[in-house]
Amino acid sequence: MGAVAAPKQDRSRATRMRLLEAAVSCLAEHGWAGSTVSVVAERAGVSRGAAQHHFPTREDLFTAAVEYVAEERSTALRALVPAGPAHRRQAVEGIVALYTGPLFRAALHLWVAASDEEQLRPRVTELEARVGREAHRSAVALLGADESVPGVRETVQGLLDMARGLGLATLLTDDGRRRARVVAQWSHILDGVLGGPGGGTA
Amino acid sequence: MGAVAAPKQDRSRATRMRLLEAAVSCLAEHGWAGSTVSVVAERAGVSRGAAQHHFPTREDLFTAAVEYVAEERSTALRALVPAGPAHRRQAVEGIVALYTGPLFRAALHLWVAASDEEQLRPRVTELEARVGREAHRSAVALLGADESVPGVRETVQGLLDMARGLGLATLLTDDGRRRARVVAQWSHILDGVLGGPGGGTA
Repeated sequence: MGAVAAPKQDRSRATRMRLLEAAVSCLAEHGWAGSTVSVVAERAGVSRGAAQHHFPTREDLFTAAVEYVAEERSTALRALVPAGPAHRRQAVEGIVALYTGPLFRAALHLWVAASDEEQLRPRVTELEARVGREAHRSAVALLGADESVPGVRETVQGLLDMARGLGLATLLTDDGRRRARVVAQWSHILDGVLGGPGGGTA
Repeated sequence: MGAVAAPKQDRSRATRMRLLEAAVSCLAEHGWAGSTVSVVAERAGVSRGAAQHHFPTREDLFTAAVEYVAEERSTALRALVPAGPAHRRQAVEGIVALYTGPLFRAALHLWVAASDEEQLRPRVTELEARVGREAHRSAVALLGADESVPGVRETVQGLLDMARGLGLATLLTDDGRRRARVVAQWSHILDGVLGGPGGGTA
């Protein structure tokens, strides 16, 4: 501990982060079947032994990577400013963008793998519930939505489901133009429901 | 040809259908990694040789199964009556239900596999586009939506994306109660946007 140990801890931490980042990229690009500890170690420029020191099993590595993905997604969502009705379309665009990038792609691969793999399933289920609650909280803040009004909670949930569905549609084809039109129209609908700059209660 | 060949053709056709149905169930339950021609043949009660006579490769079998899934989905959607604004909530429930059953689960596994497998990708991409157009047409009819009104097309697309997102959320946990509340609220919102029994233009 102390002055001598600290740099070593820093290096260990940096190695760990590189492995987690590589695991997320690997998962996004090659899916669960193509993602092993060896492949991730090579991608991270870390020896297989060092990788196994940090993550003894494949499940350990990718479960930790899910946590990392979840953290990244939350941080990205919180970084989406400004908030409130006047910036609702930007908020909707930002929320949808979170579900159409490589982080969502990695999470989707893990999600689908977890539906078949008993060792992954409980950990991913619990993590997804946590990420979902976090995304909902952030969306409420960004949209300037008042959840004490009946129906508002379900309105926001439906929007997050739509964002997830748009992310899924993006998996095989880049349908950015269609997505932009859907986002514009649904932002307009939300202004009517939640109150917004084009009229309403806010 | 003629009286002698017909029964044999019928048997061949029945075998083929059994294989396709087994392939869809297998894909829904075990995902792409756990789905092989042998596993499907055993499940269908068909010899491996007979299965390979119908579908020489794994890709052949599961691509045909995607077509079968697509056909099933379209038929199920068209069977959703009654249509029109007075039955909008039933229509939304029916559309969402299509994305939360085993057919969607099978399609999702194929979709994710196709994003990584070059041999599957173009065929699945093309099929999904066709299924998407078909789902959109059916949804427009069921909702009694008038697409000549600006924004209506994008409203329906967003609803289908929401249905897909709700299906994805169902993959790991059965969130039927949450889903019912989201469907109720968004049916209400659609009444306002598209015109409906609770007021509007219809």
